[in-house]
Amino acid sequence: MSKKIALVGIGKIARDQHIPSLAASAAFELAATASRHGTVEGIDAYPDLASLLAERPDIPCISLCTPPHVRYDDARRALEAGRHVMLEKPPGATLSEVHDLAALAEAKGLTLFATWHSRHAPAVSAARDWLANQTIRRLEIRWKEDVRHWHPGQDWIWEPGGLGVFDPGINALSILTAIYPHPLHLTRADLRFPENRDTPVAADLTFADGRGTDLRAAFDWLKEGSPEWDMHIDTDAGYALLSEGGARLSINGVETSAHAGPELEGEYPALYARFADLLAAGASDVDLSPMRHVADAFTLGRRTTGAAFNW
Amino acid sequence: MSKKIALVGIGKIARDQHIPSLAASAAFELAATASRHGTVEGIDAYPDLASLLAERPDIPCISLCTPPHVRYDDARRALEAGRHVMLEKPPGATLSEVHDLAALAEAKGLTLFATWHSRHAPAVSAARDWLANQTIRRLEIRWKEDVRHWHPGQDWIWEPGGLGVFDPGINALSILTAIYPHPLHLTRADLRFPENRDTPVAADLTFADGRGTDLRAAFDWLKEGSPEWDMHIDTDAGYALLSEGGARLSINGVETSAHAGPELEGEYPALYARFADLLAAGASDVDLSPMRHVADAFTLGRRTTGAAFNW
Repeated sequence: MSKKIALVGIGKIARDQHIPSLAASAAFELAATASRHGTVEGIDAYPDLASLLAERPDIPCISLCTPPHVRYDDARRALEAGRHVMLEKPPGATLSEVHDLAALAEAKGLTLFATWHSRHAPAVSAARDWLANQTIRRLEIRWKEDVRHWHPGQDWIWEPGGLGVFDPGINALSILTAIYPHPLHLTRADLRFPENRDTPVAADLTFADGRGTDLRAAFDWLKEGSPEWDMHIDTDAGYALLSEGGARLSINGVETSAHAGPELEGEYPALYARFADLLAAGASDVDLSPMRHVADAFTLGRRTTGAAFNW
Repeated sequence: MSKKIALVGIGKIARDQHIPSLAASAAFELAATASRHGTVEGIDAYPDLASLLAERPDIPCISLCTPPHVRYDDARRALEAGRHVMLEKPPGATLSEVHDLAALAEAKGLTLFATWHSRHAPAVSAARDWLANQTIRRLEIRWKEDVRHWHPGQDWIWEPGGLGVFDPGINALSILTAIYPHPLHLTRADLRFPENRDTPVAADLTFADGRGTDLRAAFDWLKEGSPEWDMHIDTDAGYALLSEGGARLSINGVETSAHAGPELEGEYPALYARFADLLAAGASDVDLSPMRHVADAFTLGRRTTGAAFNW
């Protein structure tokens, strides 16, 4: 039997991913939305979460697609009202607020799910399983895209808490922390800020794993044309390329079978399936490691200022 | 019976606090030091931790007073060698590395203690107990000191990972997170960087506790003369002032009894007493909340650039 769920924040990511995923889900039924402007045809619409919670006690699950800097207040409000909550990535503007939400969910016996959609890209689990048995010499992340194409007009990404190039970069870090077989931590970060913005447009990161492995990441938000969402991995057993944001894996030039079948577009359906599993188990899943690496990068960052960014 | 302990990093904080505290401790006996330059008269000295660990299997406990950006490698080395570890504040250069150390200590059944000395200032527990029963309207931290007086020539504080004005500011945050009766998170940070340095010289912070309380902190590293290490707290039951870095508490102008007796200088003796208790219990204590607020401040920070800083 499907559970009623409400979507909060009807913008680009809700339309591109959440609404189609819920339409195809047997576990959930989209019962209402809350958004200042956006609505979904045929679905009850509320202007804000407070009125939705007040008027719809029949909806036990809330999925938040609002920008991260306003997510805390809504998540807290939903948990206080006894609802289970699923959070888009990143789960908040600060680490501390998500710790607070996780403690609140636990105290109330509710499910809180901090999602990392890229971890459900089709080739990620194959990459993790293969790497578990390898000696890794070098791993280089190259995550480069055109912000004007992928985030058109989204000014909040340039504001404090919007993370700048770490908004896509945290997807790479969510994959890295899922597939890398050892703990790792940042040792250096070089961040480039547009002179008129509060968040970086490019970042070069170096990590250490206590084993001397060469670990680095380059994030760039001004790459025109095709995006580059790749991880290049040298091991004692050869070279692996995890490409297209985790969708494809080739090992020594041989494509693995991951890049076939309908699951290519399956990241968000997988998130909702996981949310259903967590609800059934009465469990939460709040892994902050990708966001912790981003906070570490801001803390350790050496800053340079570059040209102004305008849309 | 006292336990043998080794001190790593014989600099200002080791001489001012750790060595006298250990000399007065019944729980510990300073058995060796490891430091590139510093030595302690009459105590076996090693040039680095690796040689100390190799030559002194009889020393079960290691206390690290080195700067935070080099602490991880030594802490990991000591844990790998089966030793219990106590860390000066902040416990590392990144949150992720301390998570890694905590997991390693747990896996090996060793004690890891991330210390926050200011939490042991004489009036902190009285402030916590009093605030637990109050409705708080406003809390303002003012933490202002002269970096040239308190950190003479310590260039590492200006380097990435050195935290700048958050090096003293994290003491305030360690007290705040110990005495404040509700979870809180940062909502705004304004950071001023000297044009020739990678860490801030001043910070203005705003927090939220989900109850509308007015919560703010002002850190400044260029205040000449007497330092200001104060928290001003307005409650429904009146005004409390926690001053002198947690040493004194007055409530509605009446000094509490905390500011008397030998415990005024007792922060570091209390840390070693706590370490001894943790060892006896086979437990660890790694509370990262003060450091998480600092990482949140760097992540959310709006930056301004000011005059160059030179010693």
